[in-house]
Amino acid sequence: MTEPLQFNLQEDDLPTAWYNLLPDLPFAPLPPLHPGTKQPIGPADLAPLFPESLIMQEVSTERWIDIPGPVLDIYRLWRPSPLYRARRLEQALQTPAHIYFKYEGTSPAGSHKPNTAVAQAYYNKEAGIRRLTTETGAGQWGSALSMACQFFGLDCLVFMVRASFEQKPYRRIFIETMGAEVRPSPSPTTGAGKRILDETPDSTGSLGIAISEAVEVAATNEDTSYSLGSVLNHVLLHQTVVGLEAKKQMEMAGEQPDFVIGCVGGGSNYAGLSYPFMADKVAGTLDARFIATEPAACPTLTRGEYAYDFGDTGEMTPLVPMYTLGHTFVPAPVHAGGLRYHGDAPSLSALVKHGLMEARAYTQNQAFEAGVQFARTQGIIPGPEPTHAIRAAIDEAIVAREAGEKKVILIGLSGHGHFDMGAYDDYLHGRLPEVEYREEDVVAGLAHLPGVPIPD
Amino acid sequence: MTEPLQFNLQEDDLPTAWYNLLPDLPFAPLPPLHPGTKQPIGPADLAPLFPESLIMQEVSTERWIDIPGPVLDIYRLWRPSPLYRARRLEQALQTPAHIYFKYEGTSPAGSHKPNTAVAQAYYNKEAGIRRLTTETGAGQWGSALSMACQFFGLDCLVFMVRASFEQKPYRRIFIETMGAEVRPSPSPTTGAGKRILDETPDSTGSLGIAISEAVEVAATNEDTSYSLGSVLNHVLLHQTVVGLEAKKQMEMAGEQPDFVIGCVGGGSNYAGLSYPFMADKVAGTLDARFIATEPAACPTLTRGEYAYDFGDTGEMTPLVPMYTLGHTFVPAPVHAGGLRYHGDAPSLSALVKHGLMEARAYTQNQAFEAGVQFARTQGIIPGPEPTHAIRAAIDEAIVAREAGEKKVILIGLSGHGHFDMGAYDDYLHGRLPEVEYREEDVVAGLAHLPGVPIPD
Repeated sequence: MTEPLQFNLQEDDLPTAWYNLLPDLPFAPLPPLHPGTKQPIGPADLAPLFPESLIMQEVSTERWIDIPGPVLDIYRLWRPSPLYRARRLEQALQTPAHIYFKYEGTSPAGSHKPNTAVAQAYYNKEAGIRRLTTETGAGQWGSALSMACQFFGLDCLVFMVRASFEQKPYRRIFIETMGAEVRPSPSPTTGAGKRILDETPDSTGSLGIAISEAVEVAATNEDTSYSLGSVLNHVLLHQTVVGLEAKKQMEMAGEQPDFVIGCVGGGSNYAGLSYPFMADKVAGTLDARFIATEPAACPTLTRGEYAYDFGDTGEMTPLVPMYTLGHTFVPAPVHAGGLRYHGDAPSLSALVKHGLMEARAYTQNQAFEAGVQFARTQGIIPGPEPTHAIRAAIDEAIVAREAGEKKVILIGLSGHGHFDMGAYDDYLHGRLPEVEYREEDVVAGLAHLPGVPIPD
Repeated sequence: MTEPLQFNLQEDDLPTAWYNLLPDLPFAPLPPLHPGTKQPIGPADLAPLFPESLIMQEVSTERWIDIPGPVLDIYRLWRPSPLYRARRLEQALQTPAHIYFKYEGTSPAGSHKPNTAVAQAYYNKEAGIRRLTTETGAGQWGSALSMACQFFGLDCLVFMVRASFEQKPYRRIFIETMGAEVRPSPSPTTGAGKRILDETPDSTGSLGIAISEAVEVAATNEDTSYSLGSVLNHVLLHQTVVGLEAKKQMEMAGEQPDFVIGCVGGGSNYAGLSYPFMADKVAGTLDARFIATEPAACPTLTRGEYAYDFGDTGEMTPLVPMYTLGHTFVPAPVHAGGLRYHGDAPSLSALVKHGLMEARAYTQNQAFEAGVQFARTQGIIPGPEPTHAIRAAIDEAIVAREAGEKKVILIGLSGHGHFDMGAYDDYLHGRLPEVEYREEDVVAGLAHLPGVPIPD
């Protein structure tokens, strides 16, 4: 038999608990603050938006949290997800490195997003909630949440960034096929949306604006909760099913990663893959480098400030301790829509701050060059977001070749690019700009921080 | 443990030989005829188009044909494909039936098509061919062949039906991302294309026209072969990897199908799934019904004539014994582009003629209604083609419910619908017509048959 390429788990191997990194962090996590009082918020402050079960997960210090049976029953529609060795990519690079990728593109919605969408829909249903609202940029999160709501019999209202609504009708149709309602954001149906439209009638929207709209609808309707696709602790928690599977699969492969690489928008994809491995690094049993990749157009980890900031443009959320470009920063309309967020998850930000993770930013041309090489060797066309992770992996594989060292590289391939082919068209025809953010925009964004520094 | 939903094989379980049904048929297969002499063609007649190895497979009477190692190595990038039990669909239908589906949408190109594309590219590379030409309608076949050519270092030229080229840019970009050249058909670069454009300058093309163009380029260029994505014996042969896996997986599930259901355009998808099961039916060890489904807009099996006909519009191919609507028949532009072919594979046609298979035709509204129900219960959005098979499966599951009988239903889910979301948009917004073909078009098509009946 030739070298194995696949490391498949059976449905019985599905993790039955999510892993919470917070109690294992070598530093104390910082609390979110109330924007008025600047005091730590309590569970009651979140009650208008989320059911109690999710709020308890948000602040939990338990290491393991059981996955409810009905959530597992949905996970079993596609999980465990595959882990592959990218042997053909290795050969093309003539590298002694072993490259593995954990592939979340086999989920029905085509990305890792359903892992938390299903859990959130379940807990809201249990709490008697009738409807969920959310925002979506590229559309992956809206696809996932609409599917999860359909499975649990919840209504679903998705505010879709207008630029995506118009340019990506396929994602809009996906969400509608799953039975949800989609409104382009900014919309005239919320106060937040109206204010933006009054100032900028032709606004193409942003993730921050869409969040404000969805939060407003949830806060003002008793039967409606808000659902967020990244950043929050409980979202990252649900995604750890990815990394827990990947750990078992790397054991099947008989290898330990020297590099764990993923792309970061809000951070849930990369946290989901990396936190179960990070536990071993913190415990001293794994000597690996963790590389968080991001777009040069939205360089939160590499160019942002580590400070308290709002999660949304409309200043409706608590203040969150994170790397941020400022909540007014609007990144250039790069194709990796899922990475166009002005901040990052607090725990992931803290890991970078404390040197346990590295961060790298790439331009679209750098990322898509890697994506096309991956597609032409492995067949899979990656989403624009994970092409950033592939770029870093290829770079490290080349370093390994130059050094003549066998390194083991694990990539989080968070989703396929089937709904993003326009991005590949632009890349193949040289239509992507090389310079993607203006220094003055970053300076302006940082100038709008609410002025609550994080103490050293 | 709850009831299992997944029946996963490991890469070591991949079939190592394709299954050839021809020697097991209870009737003699009919030869293709030379259109001039009306005499059976020989291997030499096919030599300008195909390498010898594939011609030998086309006429082979061997029951098993080994899968070459390099082909298996590519298959292992995604195969074995999953077989699932559609428990949530069963529950929604409140049926005692057990519904299984074999899912080919996890292939990089999103359908079953790579199973033969990879084999064809391999044999052509071995024969010293430098380039492959082909046609594509909906784009699935072009995606698969461009990927396979990239893997084996072959150039690839795809004639894409102009209507699809313009309406489905994402498939065109997929093919280009894999490194192939795409030309809208009819094109001015071939004699066949020029003739059509002279008569009909605004022709939106058809599969039959695109075949003529691709065949012409192959026939007139020494270093170029033609590659067909369905209909031919060797194509069906390569697809049997699907059914061979499904048989093992149904054994894992401990059940035998009462129904084996698939959609039929040229026939390779359904043959691939069903022929390994048909072997058991012919041998008397399986008592199952085989249902071939097709669009009402192109009702070859349910409304066509069983006769010799050309495989292409330009009358360049041999005469093939099959159910046909006439090689001049142009079906309405239904979304199931992969089912818009005027004929069917000879072996599959003969199975229908001899009563071993049944055929059913559905309108788009009937098919998409089933597709949406499947999507909302199982999460997966099916391609427009396999929604026809899902329609038949749901109908049989309802019959089983009414009769209070437990039936086992196996569906071939040949691919996902990620590149066909416009079809779902049209369905959800009531834009699909109910009546999809005109009787007079069928009469006209049949009047153009070359007049070579098949003897009883």
